[in-house]
Amino acid sequence: MPKVVDHEERRRNIAEAVYRLIGANGMDAVSLRDVAQEAGVSMGAVQHYFKTKDDMLLFALGYMRERVLPRLQSALDKLPDPTTRERTRAAITLMLPLDKQSTQEATVNIAFFANSFGNKETQAKLREGYRALYEASRQSLKDAAESGELRSIEDVDQAAAELFYLVQGLIGPTLIGAMSKKEAVTVVDNKLDALFR
Amino acid sequence: MPKVVDHEERRRNIAEAVYRLIGANGMDAVSLRDVAQEAGVSMGAVQHYFKTKDDMLLFALGYMRERVLPRLQSALDKLPDPTTRERTRAAITLMLPLDKQSTQEATVNIAFFANSFGNKETQAKLREGYRALYEASRQSLKDAAESGELRSIEDVDQAAAELFYLVQGLIGPTLIGAMSKKEAVTVVDNKLDALFR
Repeated sequence: MPKVVDHEERRRNIAEAVYRLIGANGMDAVSLRDVAQEAGVSMGAVQHYFKTKDDMLLFALGYMRERVLPRLQSALDKLPDPTTRERTRAAITLMLPLDKQSTQEATVNIAFFANSFGNKETQAKLREGYRALYEASRQSLKDAAESGELRSIEDVDQAAAELFYLVQGLIGPTLIGAMSKKEAVTVVDNKLDALFR
Repeated sequence: MPKVVDHEERRRNIAEAVYRLIGANGMDAVSLRDVAQEAGVSMGAVQHYFKTKDDMLLFALGYMRERVLPRLQSALDKLPDPTTRERTRAAITLMLPLDKQSTQEATVNIAFFANSFGNKETQAKLREGYRALYEASRQSLKDAAESGELRSIEDVDQAAAELFYLVQGLIGPTLIGAMSKKEAVTVVDNKLDALFR
């Protein structure tokens, strides 16, 4: 029987290696050779899946969602019958650089961001990611407003924007230690207190 | 008479060249040679002021404050007897990537951010910059609370954190077009409406 290779698994392993490398040393540290070594595969294997470094990086960026969603699901599974507030907090907690994985993701995201000026494909993918994430948060808050979970339903769109972009703005300063993780979480919790009943 | 060289002026010209180059093509595009060409000086002149590329980049990062403050002052000078709200809005308007200069600065800031992982000096300088800026915003809001300009003075620290990090979080998405400049300004204005009388 020929050996069955799970190509998606292989690609994910390579993307994970990209995350570890960028997380440790930034985007400049990532060559196809480094990634092959980090992923424990041959250069040929990496090149089989990705023709260029840019192809590989774009895949790694798209892989963000796939990497985060199972962790969100597992965080939600630990909450019995979670309220929208609890679900919102769980999602925010994953976005802030509070543990090793989310710190890697925040670093990778900023690296792609910096790399996106002059790279239309990367910029389009980032833009799409932001919009989808924002739309999901906005919808979740709209539902919470309808089910009476919010204190005020005056301008849910504004409330959604404030919460979402506040969290985005906490990521960088927390990452470089301009504020502590605890301070970032406190700002979020106070905001959630004001928003939810 | 020997020619008088204004060394500070020379350094600033070089820093401006760094901003234009990073603003157009990102950090990777910046070599001492490129900067010399962009600044219209010789490689030797650049090397006279900065021993290494890192020295030059650190100076350029520190130059941010010096670059922004005169523009803030000039924006304030246009307002007769400005309220804290007007001063706050003027400062925020400079932080958001709404025109060519602020777009350059936001791009440069993200480039330094991405470059700061594995560069302790850059990270310390960024951290220091964030803290100083945050402290100034917080103090300004505290003064506004004392002079009765805020709607509520329940938790001024939280209000200051929400406003400051919200603005930080709007910069990136606006820069890559995930939201329009107008949307970003509307989110800020609504927030200021809620905060100030």
